[in-house]
Amino acid sequence: MPDPSLLEAFQTPTDQPLVIEHVAEEFTSVCPVTGHPDFGEVTLRFQPAPPDSEAGKTGCVELKSLKLYLQSFRDEGIYYEAVTHRIRHDLVGLMRPTWLQIITDWRGRGGIRSVVRADYGDVPGEYRGI
Amino acid sequence: MPDPSLLEAFQTPTDQPLVIEHVAEEFTSVCPVTGHPDFGEVTLRFQPAPPDSEAGKTGCVELKSLKLYLQSFRDEGIYYEAVTHRIRHDLVGLMRPTWLQIITDWRGRGGIRSVVRADYGDVPGEYRGI
Amino acid sequence: MPDPSLLEAFQTPTDQPLVIEHVAEEFTSVCPVTGHPDFGEVTLRFQPAPPDSEAGKTGCVELKSLKLYLQSFRDEGIYYEAVTHRIRHDLVGLMRPTWLQIITDWRGRGGIRSVVRADYGDVPGEYRGI
Amino acid sequence: MPDPSLLEAFQTPTDQPLVIEHVAEEFTSVCPVTGHPDFGEVTLRFQPAPPDSEAGKTGCVELKSLKLYLQSFRDEGIYYEAVTHRIRHDLVGLMRPTWLQIITDWRGRGGIRSVVRADYGDVPGEYRGI
Amino acid sequence: MPDPSLLEAFQTPTDQPLVIEHVAEEFTSVCPVTGHPDFGEVTLRFQPAPPDSEAGKTGCVELKSLKLYLQSFRDEGIYYEAVTHRIRHDLVGLMRPTWLQIITDWRGRGGIRSVVRADYGDVPGEYRGI
Amino acid sequence: MPDPSLLEAFQTPTDQPLVIEHVAEEFTSVCPVTGHPDFGEVTLRFQPAPPDSEAGKTGCVELKSLKLYLQSFRDEGIYYEAVTHRIRHDLVGLMRPTWLQIITDWRGRGGIRSVVRADYGDVPGEYRGI
Amino acid sequence: MPDPSLLEAFQTPTDQPLVIEHVAEEFTSVCPVTGHPDFGEVTLRFQPAPPDSEAGKTGCVELKSLKLYLQSFRDEGIYYEAVTHRIRHDLVGLMRPTWLQIITDWRGRGGIRSVVRADYGDVPGEYRGI
Amino acid sequence: MPDPSLLEAFQTPTDQPLVIEHVAEEFTSVCPVTGHPDFGEVTLRFQPAPPDSEAGKTGCVELKSLKLYLQSFRDEGIYYEAVTHRIRHDLVGLMRPTWLQIITDWRGRGGIRSVVRADYGDVPGEYRGI
Amino acid sequence: MPDPSLLEAFQTPTDQPLVIEHVAEEFTSVCPVTGHPDFGEVTLRFQPAPPDSEAGKTGCVELKSLKLYLQSFRDEGIYYEAVTHRIRHDLVGLMRPTWLQIITDWRGRGGIRSVVRADYGDVPGEYRGI
Amino acid sequence: MPDPSLLEAFQTPTDQPLVIEHVAEEFTSVCPVTGHPDFGEVTLRFQPAPPDSEAGKTGCVELKSLKLYLQSFRDEGIYYEAVTHRIRHDLVGLMRPTWLQIITDWRGRGGIRSVVRADYGDVPGEYRGI
Repeated sequence: MPDPSLLEAFQTPTDQPLVIEHVAEEFTSVCPVTGHPDFGEVTLRFQPAPPDSEAGKTGCVELKSLKLYLQSFRDEGIYYEAVTHRIRHDLVGLMRPTWLQIITDWRGRGGIRSVVRADYGDVPGEYRGI
Repeated sequence: MPDPSLLEAFQTPTDQPLVIEHVAEEFTSVCPVTGHPDFGEVTLRFQPAPPDSEAGKTGCVELKSLKLYLQSFRDEGIYYEAVTHRIRHDLVGLMRPTWLQIITDWRGRGGIRSVVRADYGDVPGEYRGI
Repeated sequence: MPDPSLLEAFQTPTDQPLVIEHVAEEFTSVCPVTGHPDFGEVTLRFQPAPPDSEAGKTGCVELKSLKLYLQSFRDEGIYYEAVTHRIRHDLVGLMRPTWLQIITDWRGRGGIRSVVRADYGDVPGEYRGI
Repeated sequence: MPDPSLLEAFQTPTDQPLVIEHVAEEFTSVCPVTGHPDFGEVTLRFQPAPPDSEAGKTGCVELKSLKLYLQSFRDEGIYYEAVTHRIRHDLVGLMRPTWLQIITDWRGRGGIRSVVRADYGDVPGEYRGI
Repeated sequence: MPDPSLLEAFQTPTDQPLVIEHVAEEFTSVCPVTGHPDFGEVTLRFQPAPPDSEAGKTGCVELKSLKLYLQSFRDEGIYYEAVTHRIRHDLVGLMRPTWLQIITDWRGRGGIRSVVRADYGDVPGEYRGI
Repeated sequence: MPDPSLLEAFQTPTDQPLVIEHVAEEFTSVCPVTGHPDFGEVTLRFQPAPPDSEAGKTGCVELKSLKLYLQSFRDEGIYYEAVTHRIRHDLVGLMRPTWLQIITDWRGRGGIRSVVRADYGDVPGEYRGI
Repeated sequence: MPDPSLLEAFQTPTDQPLVIEHVAEEFTSVCPVTGHPDFGEVTLRFQPAPPDSEAGKTGCVELKSLKLYLQSFRDEGIYYEAVTHRIRHDLVGLMRPTWLQIITDWRGRGGIRSVVRADYGDVPGEYRGI
Repeated sequence: MPDPSLLEAFQTPTDQPLVIEHVAEEFTSVCPVTGHPDFGEVTLRFQPAPPDSEAGKTGCVELKSLKLYLQSFRDEGIYYEAVTHRIRHDLVGLMRPTWLQIITDWRGRGGIRSVVRADYGDVPGEYRGI
Repeated sequence: MPDPSLLEAFQTPTDQPLVIEHVAEEFTSVCPVTGHPDFGEVTLRFQPAPPDSEAGKTGCVELKSLKLYLQSFRDEGIYYEAVTHRIRHDLVGLMRPTWLQIITDWRGRGGIRSVVRADYGDVPGEYRGI
Repeated sequence: MPDPSLLEAFQTPTDQPLVIEHVAEEFTSVCPVTGHPDFGEVTLRFQPAPPDSEAGKTGCVELKSLKLYLQSFRDEGIYYEAVTHRIRHDLVGLMRPTWLQIITDWRGRGGIRSVVRADYGDVPGEYRGI
């Protein structure tokens, strides 16, 4: 079951702007209709909150905790759109970033492959194309 | 015969913005002039209507129904431009999305390959390049 | 000799916007200086005139006629820039489109390969990069 | 229905050895179980019979007839293995080649993609890897 | 738990030689040491037993059953080498093929990616390179 | 018209073995049936005759003359197989090499692309795969 | 230990605008938590200060000194984000450029690969996408 | 020694806008410090002056002269930045274009590869990314 | 310092033949002449000894120990050839495999990139090409 | 002028077999007919003589000396075939290897690109394909 309590964060390391991108190439969950596994890739991009703000104290997600959090979807029956929205929701809750973007890119099913993008805040134009 | 009654939809799962892309890599119809088959790839991109709007109740096309709908073009004699426009028309009718884009990418005939793009609504700039 | 009389057109099939791209991967003409053949790829992009306008009656170039027209350059001694301009001129004359773009991409000569782009009308920004 | 009567041939053009390969990138048939379309690529390789032999009079399949023959599988419910064997059977019957090889390469279904290879006669070692 | 009872087979469709390859691009099991998921790709190649032999009656694995069988490793804590050997063992038991080959190709762990190959019978030389 | 008199040669430069490969990426001739242009790539591989043999005096084709010779097919109505055989014939006549190989690789027509290979003499195994 | 004293600079060579990009493909530091090495690629982009300004006297980093400076991270236990920020800090201190951008692209750890981008000054829009 | 007197030009062939790009894939000069050769690729993009302007009379650089001019850097000891600026200077002097852009892309030295971009005039946004 | 005592092994898991390949994409050592770091990729391929032989008890190298062993070269001044030979020596000592192959693939230095291959025992022909 | 005196060698580091490959990606010489520069890539593969043989004392070419030697062709007017033969000759003279192979791969001229291969001794089959 997706478990946001697995997520940990550390303080934003600088008050000058950073953009951080993590790409988890090995994501799997379960199709809620057929029960077959879904496989995809999850991309997270964000600008962390400034270090001296309240949000900045937990401004950057810790990598190993992100990995464990993503693994917690392994047995979850959940749609593509809901996976994407859920990850956005949990990471925004953790980091309260200036902006954040989640892109899930799914291998094909029946000859159709899909991408879902979920933005939070004012994502810069250069990241808006999938 | 293209059959929009095959299409099914589900309610938009969140009131925060999502962009959804489905790519059907295996599309075939028939050239209305020569009777030979045409082969191509169909890309659908859209932002679903908000879930609490009337349109949002059918805001997201269901994937298996999309597959069956696209298969219904298999024996249809129809031009590239008309395929593209028809899919736009039927999916806008189903989902009434905030914006939507259909791109059909056709394998070559006589050394010329073609791409047709049909937009609906205010497609963001980052999706306007083919 | 380039022969625009080979070009045929059909009426724009919808009054909603379309962008159409045709890529002819096998184009050859002759270098007017050396007499050696030149080889390249010709890309045509355009937005057809609305169907109920005068221009819209011949809003879309027919694919086989485009192929024959491009073949008519086979024995022509002509520079890259003039090929590109000529195709723009003839297709604008045929279709009177909202906007149109011709890109010719030439294989190398003496270690230098070239691309020439010719726009007509208000080509959207997303197509302006070569 | 697969129709070998569509196939035509011409005499082998030289008594010196030739190897000929044709790759049909756009093949479709129907899954006999689910009724869904299958898409794949068909490769034919062969060494034609010598021109002065009886077989050599119809030593080389004519390309347009090959295209029409492959199109005749479009509505056939048939397994991957049977498609591959059937094409081998029909082309061996037509050309009686020194050797022949059919490879069908199918797009994925449920995350599994498949390749089937059918040889006839003494296919040289360098063509034996899929 | 890997469950060979999920596997089904059908009779080899021809007494002329065939080589069949199935590539499952989405395989996952669990590392028995760390408990973290492993992701990889499983390739199966084989020449089915002749149809009129006892083995030939179950000469070809059915695709959907293969998919379900491979999914049954999802929660299994098992080494790369054992996965590969186990699949070889179960498929040889099912099909008793002339020869068979299993290749598992694993995404990296700690900067090291791995491939394991397990042959059965007299695999032709052209398939022996990983 | 293909004109072997355009071909020139120079003496093999060493009595130690050499293998020489020339790839002409821009070849065009005309389909004898439809009159439409064909486009392809021509590969020539050979081991020149030893320099102190009679054949070795014209052991290596000169590059510019090869280019002009290949250009002489530009207006010729000729089949793929005949192009390949003709080039083999003319170059063997010029150079009398230890072995020689011609491969023509043609862009698709009607969704089928073709490769034709013509060997002369004892072509080493490593060059026998197309 | 990262050692900015290794960095050397030369005067901006022209008062007309230049954009300079250096990509160091072989960067390694040490994970401060696990002690395992990290491997990545470091990209530096900047517009040097005008040559007649005070900053312009040291407007361009010298390449060999950049290489030695980057090597000085080899034994440093340091996070991705801190590497990126540190390089930005040291190069801004050296060159005082009009604008500058550092992108570090890290090979995967546990199935997650990361990119960190640090901008200084008014980085043009075309460089803002990672 | 770089020799701009080698450059020749011809009149802009049309008063409608053109964008012209030439890519010289084989450029070499000499490192002024080490004396070792540098290898790179030079890209030139420009919009020629209108044909009826004074500048338009020499609006387009002639390709063979461009090749000879670039070859004249072969023995020159010169930095990346200076090569790029010098080519911009000489071509602006020749053609007085509406805008012009030079990009030099250098193979690595010591694990660092470099790109230098030099613009002249109002280069459109779509060409500003390296 | 390369430390073979870091290596651990486990018993070969089956008495049927296996081929195992591990590719460490991130290897670094130090050039003994210049003191600059070298970067490369190390490939290990082997057939483990049968499990019931004395050698088979330590027939397969454990992955994490292999990673630590390869990291122990990080500060070693050592030539490409010696790295390759040393890894062969240490792994043969550990596993006493039926055959084994080490390939090191080094990023370029001064425009030259290198590959070194070290075999042990009767490496099958299909692995002999680098 | 090609200068083999620039070449230096060191003793073969092990009496167990090694295969060594060096690829110089940046080679240039001059066409003896036109005076224009030629650009190519030079590959050297060899098995060094055993260390305790007379030849083994200079069994391995030193990398920096190889680079300088290859640079000495920079101003030489010389054919592709002669470059290839010359490098073989000079390196065989230096190292007296068990076997050696030189492959030169040249960028196109007039639409034709070329590869020349020169072997010495009993080059293993797996290296014989270009």
